Amino acid sequence: MKQWLEETLMKLNLVETMDQPDGFTRLGLTEEEWEAMAVFTKTAEELGLSVSQDKAGNRIARWETDENKHKPTVATGSHVDTVERGGGYDGVAGVLCGLGAVKELKDEGFSPAQPIEVICFAAEESSRFGISTIGSKAMSGLADYRALENVTDSGGMTIREAVESRGLVWGDVKKAERAPDEIASFVELHIEQGLRVEQAGADYGAVTAIACPIRLLLHFNGKAGHTGTTPMMGRQDALVAAAPLISFISERAGKLSAESDLPIVATASTIELKPNVMTVIPGSLDLGIDIRSVDDSLKEQLERDIYDKCKELEKHFNVTIEGEKLVHNPSVHLNEHVCEKLVSVGSELGFSSLTLESGAGHDVMNMAAKWPSGMIFIPCKGGLSHHPAEEASVEDLAKGVKIIAAYLRKEAGE
Amino acid sequence: MKQWLEETLMKLNLVETMDQPDGFTRLGLTEEEWEAMAVFTKTAEELGLSVSQDKAGNRIARWETDENKHKPTVATGSHVDTVERGGGYDGVAGVLCGLGAVKELKDEGFSPAQPIEVICFAAEESSRFGISTIGSKAMSGLADYRALENVTDSGGMTIREAVESRGLVWGDVKKAERAPDEIASFVELHIEQGLRVEQAGADYGAVTAIACPIRLLLHFNGKAGHTGTTPMMGRQDALVAAAPLISFISERAGKLSAESDLPIVATASTIELKPNVMTVIPGSLDLGIDIRSVDDSLKEQLERDIYDKCKELEKHFNVTIEGEKLVHNPSVHLNEHVCEKLVSVGSELGFSSLTLESGAGHDVMNMAAKWPSGMIFIPCKGGLSHHPAEEASVEDLAKGVKIIAAYLRKEAGE
Repeated sequence: MKQWLEETLMKLNLVETMDQPDGFTRLGLTEEEWEAMAVFTKTAEELGLSVSQDKAGNRIARWETDENKHKPTVATGSHVDTVERGGGYDGVAGVLCGLGAVKELKDEGFSPAQPIEVICFAAEESSRFGISTIGSKAMSGLADYRALENVTDSGGMTIREAVESRGLVWGDVKKAERAPDEIASFVELHIEQGLRVEQAGADYGAVTAIACPIRLLLHFNGKAGHTGTTPMMGRQDALVAAAPLISFISERAGKLSAESDLPIVATASTIELKPNVMTVIPGSLDLGIDIRSVDDSLKEQLERDIYDKCKELEKHFNVTIEGEKLVHNPSVHLNEHVCEKLVSVGSELGFSSLTLESGAGHDVMNMAAKWPSGMIFIPCKGGLSHHPAEEASVEDLAKGVKIIAAYLRKEAGE
Repeated sequence: MKQWLEETLMKLNLVETMDQPDGFTRLGLTEEEWEAMAVFTKTAEELGLSVSQDKAGNRIARWETDENKHKPTVATGSHVDTVERGGGYDGVAGVLCGLGAVKELKDEGFSPAQPIEVICFAAEESSRFGISTIGSKAMSGLADYRALENVTDSGGMTIREAVESRGLVWGDVKKAERAPDEIASFVELHIEQGLRVEQAGADYGAVTAIACPIRLLLHFNGKAGHTGTTPMMGRQDALVAAAPLISFISERAGKLSAESDLPIVATASTIELKPNVMTVIPGSLDLGIDIRSVDDSLKEQLERDIYDKCKELEKHFNVTIEGEKLVHNPSVHLNEHVCEKLVSVGSELGFSSLTLESGAGHDVMNMAAKWPSGMIFIPCKGGLSHHPAEEASVEDLAKGVKIIAAYLRKEAGE
C-alpha cells in the first residue's frame, strides 16, 4: 500500500518527485486542475470504479453493484486544485486516501451493501476567484449562481467563462445538486495544516467543526505627494496609517486566543498600495484581512476591535478608512455521530485521536449542510501548508487509508 | 502672456483642461513623452527658435544669431515626462516658463549677445526604470551606460530597448554629452513641491542645494502558511515584522528633522508582498525606502538606525531581513553666484525670495556637475506634487517667466 500511495501521490500531482522548490500551482477550473482530475479518473478506473463528471466538473468515482445501486451512498473525497505555489498534499491527500481505502477493501474482497463513492471536487481553493469550494457548493445546492457568475480572476476571466472553458455549460451547473436521499454520509480526510494533533501525541484528528472566515477589505485613503519635498509633519501617508493596524491585528488575535476557550486567528494577508512608486508617498492602500474561529462571537469581537482601532488611526494619521465585508460565513458544526464513528473505528485499529476544530474551510462544510458529514485530519510536517514544503508522511497517509477503509467497511457493510 | 501660458500649458500636457481626475501619465521614453516633446518643438519653432534633438532624445530649442553662435549658451529648461497619474506642472512649468521668457524677450525686441537655449530633457522621472534624469545625465556626461543598459521597466523592457523604440541608437547616446565651453550657465525653474516658499510669504524660492536620495530595498523573509490553521504563536509573518519598521521610519525621520538644522524626510513608498493572497500568511515582502536630505550625514544616520531596528525585528519576529542599497547619491550644491543673480533679478522686479534646499532631485543636479547652475521654485497649491491635483497658479507661472527672462536678459545681454 505504501508504495502505491507514494506512486499515486506523484501521479495525482503530475510530478516525478514531491521535492518541488516552486511548489504546485493548479488553480481551480484551469487545464492544470483538469489534468490532475484525469489522473484521478484513470486511477479510480484501474481500481474498478466507474467515474462520471457531474455538471459542475466534480468527478465521482463510484463502486456500486446491481444489488446496492438504489441505496444511499457512503462517500468520501476532497479536491486536487491548489493555491499558487502551494503544496502537493492539501486536497490530494483526501482523494488519495479515499482511493487507497477502496483499494484496501477491493483487495480484501469486501462486498459493499451500499454504494461507495470517492469524490474529487472542483475548485476548492479561493485563490483564483476569491470564492472557495465551488464544486461542493454546487453538489450540495449552496451555490448562489447569480452572485458567482461575474466574479473574475486576476486576468479578468469570470467564473462563468472559466467553467465554460472546461467544456461545461454554465446554465447546467445547478444540475450538479444531489438529492438528500442519494448520500448516506460523507467524510473528508485532509492534512491538518497545523500542529495540534502532533502536539497532543495523537495519530489523527477527528474534526468537530469548521471555522469559517470573516474577511474584510479596508480601504485607506490618504494623500499622495513627492517623497522628497513633503515634510514629515502633515503627511497623510496611507501606509504609515495602516502599519499600526497590521501590528494590532496580530497582537489582538493572539491575546483573544489566549483568553478564550476556542482559538482565533487573524491575518492581514494582502496589500495593494497606490501608486507603489519609490518617489511617491503612498496615497491609498487596500488591506485584506482574514479572521477565523469556530466561535463566531470571537470573530465578531475582533472585527469590532479592528473598526475601533481604525477610528483612532483615522484621527491620528488624518486619513479615512472604509471597510468592506467580503465574507461573513458562520462556522459549521459537523455531525456528532459521524465524528464518534470516526473516533471509534480509529480506536479499534489502535490509533489515538484528538477531537478538534478546523481553522480552514473544506468541501465537507458544504456537504454537512445536507448530509451527515465528518472529517479527519492526518498530521503534516511542521504544520506547514499552502507552501512548497507542505508534507505528510507516507505512514500517516497509510493510517488515513486504514481509518477511511474502516469507516466505509462499517457504514457500507452488510 | 497669461493667456499664452494657460493655452501652452494645456498643449504641452496634451489636454483641453487641466482638471484631470486621473492625472497625467507620460512615462519617460514612451510615445506619450514624445508627443509632449513634439508640442514643445512646435511651440519653440513658432517663437522662432531652431529645435534639434540630441542623441539622447533631449530637445534643444536655440536662439542664436550669426554674431553670437560661437559663444557659450545661456540655458534654461526642465522636462515633460511625468510619474504615473502625476500632475501637469512638474517639469512642464520649467519648459513652459523658459519658452515664455523667450517670448517676452522676442516681444520686446531683445537681441542676445550670447545664444539662449530652452532645453527639454528626456526621462527625468524615475518611476519607469527606477533611474531618474536620464537625459540630463547624458548631456552632462554622467550616465553609466553599462549600468543603465539592462535596467528594465515593469513590463520587462530595458532602457536600451526603450531608447531604441524612440528611434534613437543606443551606442550613440553618449554623443549627447556637451563640452564645458558650450554652456555659460544653466537655470531650471520648477514647482516647489512643498510649502516653504508660501509659508515664508515669499514670491519664489532660490535653491542652494539638491537633496539626493539614499534608497534602500529591504527583503523580509518569513514563512508562508495557511491563515486559518497556523496558530498566532510561532508565526513568521513577513508583513507583521515589517509593520513596526514602517512606523519607525516615519517617526524617526520626523524626530531627526526636528532636532537638526536641515530637514530630512524618509518614506516607505513601495511594498511587494508574496504571495499576497487572502488565505496565505505573508511569507516575504520587499519594502522600498526613500531617504532625502541635503545633509548627507543625516541620511546615513537614518540608514544606520533603520538597520539597527531591523536587527531587533529579526529577533522579535523570527524573520530575516536583507538590505540592498539601490541609490546612494551625495547631495549637490548649486553655484552660489548663479543663486545670487537669481535672487537679485527677482528683487529688481519687486519679488521676494526665500533661499532654500530642494528635497527632490532635478535635471539641474546633473548640469551643476559641469556648468554653473541654479534653480528657482515657484509655489504650488498645497505643496502637492506627483498627484492629479498638482497645480501652480498662472500668476506664479507669469512671475517665473519674468524672473527667467530677467536672468537671460542679464546673462545673454550686451
